[in-house]
Amino acid sequence: MSTPTTPKKPVNVSPGVTLGHQAVILMAGPCAVESYEQMRAVAEAVVHAGGHVLRGGAFKPRTSPHSFHGLGYEGLLILRHVADEFGLLVITEALAVAHVPQVAELADIIQIGSRNMQHYPLLWAVGELDKPVMLKRGFMSTIEEWLQAADHIASRGNEKIILCERGIRTFETATRNTLDTNAIALVKQTSPYPVIADPSHATGRADLVLPAARTAVAAGADGLLVEFHPDPHLALSDGAQSLPLTMLPQFMDEVGRIAQAMGRFLA
Amino acid sequence: MSTPTTPKKPVNVSPGVTLGHQAVILMAGPCAVESYEQMRAVAEAVVHAGGHVLRGGAFKPRTSPHSFHGLGYEGLLILRHVADEFGLLVITEALAVAHVPQVAELADIIQIGSRNMQHYPLLWAVGELDKPVMLKRGFMSTIEEWLQAADHIASRGNEKIILCERGIRTFETATRNTLDTNAIALVKQTSPYPVIADPSHATGRADLVLPAARTAVAAGADGLLVEFHPDPHLALSDGAQSLPLTMLPQFMDEVGRIAQAMGRFLA
Amino acid sequence: MSTPTTPKKPVNVSPGVTLGHQAVILMAGPCAVESYEQMRAVAEAVVHAGGHVLRGGAFKPRTSPHSFHGLGYEGLLILRHVADEFGLLVITEALAVAHVPQVAELADIIQIGSRNMQHYPLLWAVGELDKPVMLKRGFMSTIEEWLQAADHIASRGNEKIILCERGIRTFETATRNTLDTNAIALVKQTSPYPVIADPSHATGRADLVLPAARTAVAAGADGLLVEFHPDPHLALSDGAQSLPLTMLPQFMDEVGRIAQAMGRFLA
Amino acid sequence: MSTPTTPKKPVNVSPGVTLGHQAVILMAGPCAVESYEQMRAVAEAVVHAGGHVLRGGAFKPRTSPHSFHGLGYEGLLILRHVADEFGLLVITEALAVAHVPQVAELADIIQIGSRNMQHYPLLWAVGELDKPVMLKRGFMSTIEEWLQAADHIASRGNEKIILCERGIRTFETATRNTLDTNAIALVKQTSPYPVIADPSHATGRADLVLPAARTAVAAGADGLLVEFHPDPHLALSDGAQSLPLTMLPQFMDEVGRIAQAMGRFLA
Repeated sequence: MSTPTTPKKPVNVSPGVTLGHQAVILMAGPCAVESYEQMRAVAEAVVHAGGHVLRGGAFKPRTSPHSFHGLGYEGLLILRHVADEFGLLVITEALAVAHVPQVAELADIIQIGSRNMQHYPLLWAVGELDKPVMLKRGFMSTIEEWLQAADHIASRGNEKIILCERGIRTFETATRNTLDTNAIALVKQTSPYPVIADPSHATGRADLVLPAARTAVAAGADGLLVEFHPDPHLALSDGAQSLPLTMLPQFMDEVGRIAQAMGRFLA
Repeated sequence: MSTPTTPKKPVNVSPGVTLGHQAVILMAGPCAVESYEQMRAVAEAVVHAGGHVLRGGAFKPRTSPHSFHGLGYEGLLILRHVADEFGLLVITEALAVAHVPQVAELADIIQIGSRNMQHYPLLWAVGELDKPVMLKRGFMSTIEEWLQAADHIASRGNEKIILCERGIRTFETATRNTLDTNAIALVKQTSPYPVIADPSHATGRADLVLPAARTAVAAGADGLLVEFHPDPHLALSDGAQSLPLTMLPQFMDEVGRIAQAMGRFLA
Repeated sequence: MSTPTTPKKPVNVSPGVTLGHQAVILMAGPCAVESYEQMRAVAEAVVHAGGHVLRGGAFKPRTSPHSFHGLGYEGLLILRHVADEFGLLVITEALAVAHVPQVAELADIIQIGSRNMQHYPLLWAVGELDKPVMLKRGFMSTIEEWLQAADHIASRGNEKIILCERGIRTFETATRNTLDTNAIALVKQTSPYPVIADPSHATGRADLVLPAARTAVAAGADGLLVEFHPDPHLALSDGAQSLPLTMLPQFMDEVGRIAQAMGRFLA
Repeated sequence: MSTPTTPKKPVNVSPGVTLGHQAVILMAGPCAVESYEQMRAVAEAVVHAGGHVLRGGAFKPRTSPHSFHGLGYEGLLILRHVADEFGLLVITEALAVAHVPQVAELADIIQIGSRNMQHYPLLWAVGELDKPVMLKRGFMSTIEEWLQAADHIASRGNEKIILCERGIRTFETATRNTLDTNAIALVKQTSPYPVIADPSHATGRADLVLPAARTAVAAGADGLLVEFHPDPHLALSDGAQSLPLTMLPQFMDEVGRIAQAMGRFLA
């Protein structure tokens, strides 16, 4: 049962925020940046709850060509502006190689989305940077393929890699995806990189996000990427899985107690 | 996000042991009853750790006809004898309708295995009894089918039903199955019956059993069914996923702390 | 690419009907035996189309306890009576060990259903007989587990085994299951037993049954188990996947042409 | 059972080659272009067998960063040169937006690979062209998502779309993927676009490619994308699923007979 110790590679995002150390890092915000007012409301709540990282999508990959595709570069500017106003860090997705320079300029952590986990030119592009990259597991990818995708990034020199388990596709349809907590525990043992979880996509249902966040932390997750929205039923995307900002205190309390049981704390 | 409150139906097994109340109930023991000495060693460790329920298989369903199929009725007698000696309760599987009378006579909780989840004559047979039944989810059954299987039992009058999530079959092969913690959280909300988890089958790897047990409790599980063996590498079945008895204290400690974070305790 | 030749074990059901030889054997009839009139209508159409085997369920396993569960022994008697009247053979399912004697007495081929593929006491019970057994692949079972289930039957002496691929559960929901034609081709190469396919359950949609039947024969299937009903929209079970009897000639024609392209014929 | 007739949109690639008409179009060649000599050997065999389309990869997406990644632009030039020499058409993959102009210039059909099915910037880029695009189904994408991905291409104006079923990821591990013949039949009914199949990736085993090709045609496929190599055990990628060129005549004969049974012919 003993596992060979892998030398860990924590990812330092800012002087106070490191993934893979004692703190469990919350990254909270809406699926899509919709407006300056929306992001200010979120940022205020995140700061008040003790969080440090703001998330929000500017370029949105959508299954149907007829859905809302995000505000683009304007969304990025709003996100950065609001984050600076509140002293927060920013994580956002680079959907294409062409977006990498803009995203790298304005974000503190670059997200590679689930659908892009094996989009190698994109992995190579962020692999050339000296900036934290959060690599989501493909919802159809094995753990081995996920770690190999991380190798694609590292092979170009960038080892500031954060892995993110976001649920896999299974035969079960009562939930959007199946959160693979086994994978979180396994990757913690075998990979040098920190691993976080996205309970919002992994469940697709607001009523399961909080328990899924607790389980991820109990499995050993180093952080959580969670969708919060001022008004989920008005959200332009992913409203069904977004928590209202009013739930943030309960979230911090319940998940924070699990973090403490693990000898850690939520921030 | 509010869910209509389902009137809960806790399952009282003995004066001190109820599934679905504050205690998270540990059911520990080997996959298969192999000998009187083996079971005594396990029972002693379980009692010492503060546990109340002893598990062990007498009739083992095995994928290959050439594998060890259990000691049968003799195994049942050993299990009951040792449990009485140590003041423990017994859970064991009824593999076929023909076994139900014997198992019902000697066990405190009758287990219906994953492969039998839709074996209706067996469900109806235990549905006629006034005895707790633990119904494992089929490893490729949807949550809805699982709850309908419970309906098959309840339709004959027996509502002392304990549901058990034991991992589902997915494309991932690094683990034996994928523990579906979403399902635990969902069933806790929508079903009247208590729900437990089997982290041993859900992972198939001893090194992941403990984290999986923590995640199940964080998801809201009311109990845990865990394989412990005095000497896992000598086990006649499922050795790779059995924990040694020497790990029981660490198990109680780590999982117990998660239970406390949930406002519960492990027993 | 050359595969070691497995000595084949064709299954002789009657002087004129052998599974695993040149003829592709059609087994046609309703999901459930509903009445004498219904079965006569089916039998007449089957004979007229040149078929030899009548199917129909007497004991129906149903996911919900509130669905129609079949006519039981009365259904068996109807099935046998009608088959004899028209000179047809009978295939029907034994759902439980307790049914085996009755089914063995009245049927020419005993069907073991998908949910029972790993119900070992049932496999052992039919393994004691000298009668053809048709073993459906569990919809959640690997090819290896399927062949091992066949070993459970053969281990008791009965090698008159017919394997049946009936679709597996995958993430795809547009069809009830996914017909695994790779499995048909693989089992043809590696197993001594004949293999047939059930395009009705494998698709769950009447509009896909005919193409699925063609593909199964092109993959090498030795027979087809197909749901036909005089009036599918009045069927008490599985109406959505049943073909009307009026489609039988077109079915024989289209599938028959594929059989001919394979150097075989449909009967 | 009658389906509303969808107006079909056959794809004309050259004066003699149209996808979606009576001919079933074979696209044959190695996984990766390795050398001029290799491609000449393949092209000669394809012409001799009566084929019209040569396949070969120049840019290869590989799961591991340490595998052979193809000859790049040089490979494209070899492919075009050899095809012109033998009067063949060319299909090859554009792996990234940056490759689209080169591939569009040199290929007759642009392939979008399975991992890129939801790589929207790439879909939009080929959607701007007036050139046939072959869109592979993601190996864990639903039929609906596949058709929506086609919509992404069509939304930019290009409706010369050929769909390709190449197997889906399931729990079965005896084969690399599970060929979803149900999907072929369903898409034939509901989509305006022609649909082909890739039996090589769908099985991952040379001994199953031929039966899989037969089943695809029996399901209604309008074409086949098949890996052939002069010497599969020396192939730099996908050797285990490549057929030797010496099997081409048997392939044409067996699959051709199924095509004839469908009222079509293989070319």
